[in-house]
Amino acid sequence: MDSKWALTNDGRVKTDALAQFGQRVRQLRIERNLSQEDLAELADLHRNYVSQIEGGRRNVSLLNILKLAHGLKVRPTRLIETIR
Amino acid sequence: MDSKWALTNDGRVKTDALAQFGQRVRQLRIERNLSQEDLAELADLHRNYVSQIEGGRRNVSLLNILKLAHGLKVRPTRLIETIR
Repeated sequence: MDSKWALTNDGRVKTDALAQFGQRVRQLRIERNLSQEDLAELADLHRNYVSQIEGGRRNVSLLNILKLAHGLKVRPTRLIETIR
Repeated sequence: MDSKWALTNDGRVKTDALAQFGQRVRQLRIERNLSQEDLAELADLHRNYVSQIEGGRRNVSLLNILKLAHGLKVRPTRLIETIR
């Protein structure tokens, strides 16, 4: 196993993973010229929730990961492939 | 966008995604000759929770996806790449 995938009980590491997920969502959203409000509508999520996700402040659920992937028109794996 | 990734508001589709995730976890766990209890310990999750995930009865969070990937010694993307 590649150690970079190790998840410890260290809160910082967990926060990093959520921040990396949020940064990835933001990156893909901006590449598509979508506002947070646009993405919220496409993904059937609340705009405030999208903002919190991008800020790494939400431990997003699998179904919401799928909704975001749907809204961004990417495979779900692309949203988590950058988490280190 | 590949339509197979479309997520509707149809409850069945959502349930399918969770079931597919659970089946993937179970498959990888069995390939590694781990019991649910073994995986629970490796992933720092409760054994009952692992059982519910494998049965598709939990909308697992991103941090728990990462914990499961850690316990199974796979990249997190491998856990969701089979969701259709």
